Amino acid sequence: MKNKPIILVTNDDGIIAPGIRALVNVMNSLGEVYVVAPNKPQSGIGHAITMDTILYCDSVQIDNGSQKEWECSGTPVDCVKLAISNILPRKPDICVSGINHGSNSSINIMYSGTISAVIEAGIEGIPSVGFSLLDFDWNADFEPAKKYVCKIVKKILYNPIPKGGISLNVNIPKKKIKGMKICRQAESKWKESFDKRYNPKGRTYYWLIGDFINFDKKSDTDEWALKNGYVSIVPIKFDLTDYPILNILRSWNFILLFIFLDILL
Amino acid sequence: MKNKPIILVTNDDGIIAPGIRALVNVMNSLGEVYVVAPNKPQSGIGHAITMDTILYCDSVQIDNGSQKEWECSGTPVDCVKLAISNILPRKPDICVSGINHGSNSSINIMYSGTISAVIEAGIEGIPSVGFSLLDFDWNADFEPAKKYVCKIVKKILYNPIPKGGISLNVNIPKKKIKGMKICRQAESKWKESFDKRYNPKGRTYYWLIGDFINFDKKSDTDEWALKNGYVSIVPIKFDLTDYPILNILRSWNFILLFIFLDILL
Repeated sequence: MKNKPIILVTNDDGIIAPGIRALVNVMNSLGEVYVVAPNKPQSGIGHAITMDTILYCDSVQIDNGSQKEWECSGTPVDCVKLAISNILPRKPDICVSGINHGSNSSINIMYSGTISAVIEAGIEGIPSVGFSLLDFDWNADFEPAKKYVCKIVKKILYNPIPKGGISLNVNIPKKKIKGMKICRQAESKWKESFDKRYNPKGRTYYWLIGDFINFDKKSDTDEWALKNGYVSIVPIKFDLTDYPILNILRSWNFILLFIFLDILL
Repeated sequence: MKNKPIILVTNDDGIIAPGIRALVNVMNSLGEVYVVAPNKPQSGIGHAITMDTILYCDSVQIDNGSQKEWECSGTPVDCVKLAISNILPRKPDICVSGINHGSNSSINIMYSGTISAVIEAGIEGIPSVGFSLLDFDWNADFEPAKKYVCKIVKKILYNPIPKGGISLNVNIPKKKIKGMKICRQAESKWKESFDKRYNPKGRTYYWLIGDFINFDKKSDTDEWALKNGYVSIVPIKFDLTDYPILNILRSWNFILLFIFLDILL
């Protein structure tokens, strides 16, 4: 790469979160940094976009680094779209998101604004990486994570990108990191329950709570890596087609069977 | 299936939308119907969940069918979680979402609340189908779509489900339907632009606009099927691991290369 790379930084914890400040700090050493991030926390916002209302996006300076910054009233995915379309001087060389306060491993990527920003950049053909630290604390220590963030971003910037692009979901243990593992997403889910309460007027309301369940005990998953002290690196994509089921449906002769169903049911 | 199937119905256009009323009408002929749907439009909400505030979920009756109904202050994914956890007498036999006012083909599934509800049900191990009509009009004619909705749901209810479950994204042409096709998600994206305006106080704001681009001209995609008058049926999944890239990263010796990067950069 001849010129200084252009790096887009976003997150879902909001532009003032210590996690994104740590990420900006590392990125300033690697390129020309543009931060376009939500003006408020957006955890659990997934791949939401703002269609039916307006977006504000204002230039700000949160700390004293060399980055240029904008805070946006929308979601992380809005931030990526607006950055590429209206703010950056050209398509960025990489988009990084995070460092999230808390894990985005396995099934959690479905709900994560941090990772949805990474996927959106992937859709745009931009190499992208989401970083999450396994510590929900606002005052979490991001220092041990910085070394791995720097290494992974350098790797993407200075090596040939596979045809079809690359998007990575990187989770980082809180401390005592043993190394890194390339992983697949573990089969897992949240077992939900809702805490049912009554408001002062007697109307029922609910708080979402739940327990995380990992069904997947194999050693090639992100959950395994993290449990065993490794940084997990999962390549992710945005083609949700279930190809094995596609083949099953075709072999079932799904369409022709409708003729029999019409007779039988 | 010995007992009457239990059918969970939701959507992202809101519980009073004509599309969900058409879906409820068909489902009442097939089983015991529970509607748990947002109390307001939620298009573009993706896989968002409500974590930092409360949810209301109140029993309502929108029209005169045999269904039981609840309107929820949260997102479509919240509706699925709350329905399974607190409302339904048991795990449903199927979850259907829609009928969406407008297409959810190809890349649009990333942004769609309708399809996120389908994916959430899939995570819970529940067979699920999202239906969308290629007509954004609030007063769209859902009658021609009903026949296909009924056939597809019957097929899922009365045939063995593949191991690992089944979730389908079904899009239905507006009229002159030729038949059905099993498809993969087309490679596509939105080319965004933002309409930049100024509020009465002079502050800049933006409206998201954009043009849909289909890069994928092959005949096995949902875009092809729809363009040629067929109902498109795409099996979808929630494992976002990019397996081809996983293999490339492993063959690159991604981890070992860091040692050289440490020296070179």
